Formats: sequence, structure tokens, C-alpha cells
Amino acid sequence: MIKRRIYSPGPVEVSPDTALEMARPILHHRTGEFEAIIAEVVEGLKFVFQTRGDVLLFASSGTGAMEGAVTNLLNPGDKALCVVGGKFGQRWSQLVSRFGALPVNIDVPWGKAVNPDDVARALEADPVIKAVYIQACETSTGVAHPVRDVARIVRGHENTVLVVDAISAVGVMNLPADDWGLDVVVGGSQKAWQLPPGLAFASVSPKAWKLVDQCVQPRFYFDWKTEKKSIGKNTTAYTPAVSLIMGLRKVLADIREEGLESLFSRAALYARMFRAAMEALGLGLFAPDSPSDSITAVCSPEGMDARKVVRHLSEKYHITIAAGQDQIKETVFRVSHMGYLDGLDMITAVAAVEITLKDLGWNVELGAGVKKAQEILTNA
Amino acid sequence: MIKRRIYSPGPVEVSPDTALEMARPILHHRTGEFEAIIAEVVEGLKFVFQTRGDVLLFASSGTGAMEGAVTNLLNPGDKALCVVGGKFGQRWSQLVSRFGALPVNIDVPWGKAVNPDDVARALEADPVIKAVYIQACETSTGVAHPVRDVARIVRGHENTVLVVDAISAVGVMNLPADDWGLDVVVGGSQKAWQLPPGLAFASVSPKAWKLVDQCVQPRFYFDWKTEKKSIGKNTTAYTPAVSLIMGLRKVLADIREEGLESLFSRAALYARMFRAAMEALGLGLFAPDSPSDSITAVCSPEGMDARKVVRHLSEKYHITIAAGQDQIKETVFRVSHMGYLDGLDMITAVAAVEITLKDLGWNVELGAGVKKAQEILTNA
Repeated sequence: MIKRRIYSPGPVEVSPDTALEMARPILHHRTGEFEAIIAEVVEGLKFVFQTRGDVLLFASSGTGAMEGAVTNLLNPGDKALCVVGGKFGQRWSQLVSRFGALPVNIDVPWGKAVNPDDVARALEADPVIKAVYIQACETSTGVAHPVRDVARIVRGHENTVLVVDAISAVGVMNLPADDWGLDVVVGGSQKAWQLPPGLAFASVSPKAWKLVDQCVQPRFYFDWKTEKKSIGKNTTAYTPAVSLIMGLRKVLADIREEGLESLFSRAALYARMFRAAMEALGLGLFAPDSPSDSITAVCSPEGMDARKVVRHLSEKYHITIAAGQDQIKETVFRVSHMGYLDGLDMITAVAAVEITLKDLGWNVELGAGVKKAQEILTNA
Repeated sequence: MIKRRIYSPGPVEVSPDTALEMARPILHHRTGEFEAIIAEVVEGLKFVFQTRGDVLLFASSGTGAMEGAVTNLLNPGDKALCVVGGKFGQRWSQLVSRFGALPVNIDVPWGKAVNPDDVARALEADPVIKAVYIQACETSTGVAHPVRDVARIVRGHENTVLVVDAISAVGVMNLPADDWGLDVVVGGSQKAWQLPPGLAFASVSPKAWKLVDQCVQPRFYFDWKTEKKSIGKNTTAYTPAVSLIMGLRKVLADIREEGLESLFSRAALYARMFRAAMEALGLGLFAPDSPSDSITAVCSPEGMDARKVVRHLSEKYHITIAAGQDQIKETVFRVSHMGYLDGLDMITAVAAVEITLKDLGWNVELGAGVKKAQEILTNA
């Protein structure tokens, strides 16, 4: 008998209730019944994105919505500031140049958060920069960038918008789009939404819409104006991912019932439990100074290939976590706190990491991390 | 968000694969398609019951099959030896007397296993005893009775059959019906079978069929002869629980693939992990001398009502375990090792019990039980 557990940075575990919702008979999307669902879902998305502006939804994974956040905002030749502190920061920069715009990169060491002063300086040095692209949580390193501080800076620049890849952050960390002035926030279903991959979201502020109006970049599937017109009629321009949207409706209803504050504090609790447990085992965190509550990147013990840890957890205990990417693939493993998980699941993950390290010959004190996680859970 | 976990002595957790199987479109039972399923299921049941004899299946819970094991074997006035060491031993005795037969009880202190010599003496003292009724695992106390030794004794009595309530044992412990001479073995779907409640099974040996032939007790729904005739034609006499049987087919296929030896050794491992963990916490086991691998009954700390432990686990951590029953309801809680559970689930249960005891004011060393369970798992 094999029981699988998934703690990957996406996709994540889907709850049985959501799975049942998605298993309901398929609806046709050009019906009043489905329009009511779209209306409900869009309201729910606005609640989570904390915006009175627009939230658009796409049948794509997160990268599709990232592409849209470039092709709807930047003309060829436009300059864009990209915070590049990991794989997904790199993706912003790649997207910007792929569509003929000019990325100005702020290179941040992997595992570190960007210094907001660097953003301020770059914007002052180059006032024609049209957009700042950043991650709320850099999935590849587990770093949470100081989005609020960066937003404060960007707000001071009338002709510059802030675009936040919050694919692994929205629904986990507090990111009030309107309050903080996050012009575009991008999300994806396979993270905190506890859904399978296949849905992506983008909130768009009035300031961002001004850029959209001036944008001549060719685009079709991810065209925001087309999509906005459709959403205004409670429909989508192209065929929506019907079952995922049924699941999303259920998840959003649950989130509303729980409340955002509880949602965020639960995520913070799980992340705190896991980080403290790893530290109790004597393991280093890859991003100790600005850890996200979505994903924890843990330094593998000296001399132990992180990919071996990942493989052993998978093969012996049927637990999916992720190794690091690129230059940290041998030294870092990543455990997510997103999905249909609770505090006891964090304890299970800690226990499994402990046993795995022991199996692999590291001198770990079994139970030491679990104890730390238990203490935090019982005091929560 | 609430995530529920069930470690009750039944019902137990059902795997998603089994749930999907049961969600398949309903079949009509009087069709060739379903007859093939019945044939496959009966072969699978014989494999698990380890018999070349008959295995009958009923749309009922376990008690229904227990009733049949009385009404098909005993005439009014017949004598039957009942091993009474808990709630379910009492049930045998009640059933025997309810149908006008005469129970001869061997009273065993709760938490203890029967001494086979007592069975030998009772049978010698009263040679007209037609049947011995016993539990393989007494669910109320977690005790495993020495079924093999008792069977050896009963085999020496030509006119006496052995009836084993293995509702919480078959599929967990090795109980080879033919090899050991277990004339009737009763099972129920909501235990090791990892199915919802609603199906019961009874294997019947040639020696038992002789009693059935002589039995004039009125019976209809649980009439074994009627059912045997139907099973011979790959059908059931009355409407079968179609979806549960679809699930059973899946479970049986999985068991065949895994093999009985692995099935039993996994159960033994989980039970060993849990018992050792509880002892590491300084908790007493209610049945330390003859524990089953199905259920562990744990003595609540001095002065702490076991029902409070059960309630706290449920309310704060959404974990279902069971309190003791009757005279041990305040002093014992019971955790099952059956169902869609693995070693990591045992660790989760241990961690949750630790936190709960701490929450309730007991001076428990968090992680101490987990560590013990981890050690056993990693060395398994």
C-alpha cells in the first residue's frame, strides 16, 4: 500500500471536498448557470486579492499570466526593472526581453531579499522605466521580497507600475493590492488555492490600465482588454477551465468563511513550525533573513546531495518535496506549506525529513525537530 | 480549514483509489458483468481468509455475520462456549442466549487473553458443547486471543466447531482458516479492508457445514445454505451492496498484489511503533501481554479522563480515536492501526497524542514518543 503526500511548491494537495466539487457534471460555460458562478468567483478573487479593481482569470498556468503582465504593459523598447533573485525573477527578465522590451535587472544573491533602496535608486537613475517586476515569494529560494516597501517607492513614480508575481504568495501572505498599491498581482491555482494547476489570475489597477491602453504589443489569448470586457458580462473570452472554476468557487467560499487573517496566520504558523524544526536539527535555512510562509528552502547537510534527500523521501516514504533549482540543486531542498495541509502535516514532514537524513547516514537526533514543531503548534 | 483524520477501531480511512472505485456508475447485480465481479471477489476473499472452503458475503455490518454464525450453527438448547473478555465476547454470549442456546462463558479479565487451558478444561467438562465462540482481536480491549492454540484444542473435539470473530483481525493478523482449523471466521468491511461499513463476511468449513445441516433455527437473511447456493452461481441471494463490492474488488486486488505477508508485517510494524511510542511517554498499555496489531488500548494518565483525551483530539486536532467502553471508558483510549494508514500516519497520531496530553496539563516530553516510533520505522 502506498500513501502519497505532496509538499511540493506546486502542485499541492487538493482537499477531498474540492475534488468532489470538480468531479461534478461539467457545465457549459455559455449558460446563465455558469455566468452566476463566474460572478461569484470574481467577487471571491477580489476578496482574496483585496482589490476593488479588476481580477482577470485565465485557463493557463501562472507563466501565462506572467506573460500577459508583460505583453499588456510593455511596448517593444520600453524599459522594465526586474528584481532577479532566483529562477522566477529570471523569468520576468526573460519575458521582458522576449517581447522586445529592455530589462534592467537588479541582481540579488539567491536566498536574499532585494534591498528596496536599490529599487529606489534604479528608478531615480532611469525615470523612463515603465514597470517594476518582482516576486512576492521567489519560489526557487523561498525568499519573501519586501513588496510593501517596494510598492511605497513605486507609488511615488507616476508613470511606473509595480507587477508582483504572487503565484506562490497570494492566499498565503497578506498582499492587499489596493492598500499597498500593487498594480498587477499574478496568481496561479496550484499554490495556496489548493487546486490543480490550470488557472491563473491577474489583478489590474487603474494605473496599470493606463499602460494597457498605450500598449501595442501583439497579444490575443492573454489580452486583458478582451478579457475585461468578458468578465464585465460574467463570462470569459475563451473557453474557461470549467471544472477548475467549480473547484475555485468552493475554495473561495471556504476562504471567505475562514477569513483572510486566519488564512495568513495558519500559513505563518506552519512555516514557523517547519523552520524552527529544521533549525533544531542543526540544518541551515537558505533564506534565514526573509523567509516566505509559502516555501522553506533548507540547506542539505554538508556533503549530502539535496537530490538524494528528495529521492529518498519519494522512494521510501512517498513524500514529494522539491530540490533546489540550477546552482542550488545539490545543496538545497524545498518544502512547501501550501495546499490542503495542516499543522500535523508539518509534523509529518519534519518527522520524514528526520528519518530520511538518518537513513542517509546523517547524525540526526530523531524527534528533535518534531518536538520543536509540536511546541509551536501547542502554543499557537 | 479542517482536515480530518480517523484512527477509530472502525470505520477507518478509505483510500482515494477505493473511493473512486465506489463512485463508479452503479451496476445492476443480476448481470453477467456483476457475476464476474462476485466471482473475482469471492476468490479474493478466499485468498485473504486462507481457505479453500466457502466464504459468504452479506450486506450487513459485522454483527449481522456474527448473528448468522449463531443462527446457522446452534439449535435452541445447544450449549456454546463463549470467551468473554470484553464487549464483543459479551456479544457472542448475548447472541447465543438470544436464540435460545445456552452460553457457557469463560470470563477473562478485560485486557487479558484467554488461557487456552481453560478452553480445554471447559470442553472436557462439557462434551456436548457444540461451538466455541471467540474474538481474534477483542476490539474493546485491543487484546489478541491465542486463536491458534484454541483451534488446536477444538480440532480434537469432533463435534465442536470454532467460531472466530475476526472482524477487526482478518487482513491484519495471520489467521489461516484451513491450516489452523478455524471453522467459521467472521469479518467486516470497515476494518482492515479499508472500506466503509456495510459488508460482512463469513468463511465456513466442512465441519461447520455439518452443524448447519442439523440446524433448525429459523433464519432467512443470514441463511448460509441459501447464500452458498447463490454464491455457487456467482450471485447473492438478496440485493448485494454493489458499490461496496466494487470497492472490495479493488482492495482485494491490492492485497493480492502486496501479498499477505507484507500486509501483516506492515500492520505489526504500525502497532509496534505506536505501542513503543506510548510506553516511551510513560503511558501504560491496557493489554501489554497480548496486544493485537489492530488496535492499541492505552491507559490514560492517572486522573485524566480518557474521554477528555478523545474529545480534545477531535475538537482541537480533528483526529478521531475511541475511548474505552463500559468499565474502561474513563481510563482507556483506543487507537487503531487499520485502514488506509502508513507508518507516517502512526507518527502523526503519536505527535497528536503527545500535544493533547500536554494541552491537558500532563507533563509529557514532546517528541519522545515520536522519536521511538521513528526509530522503529527507520529500522523496519
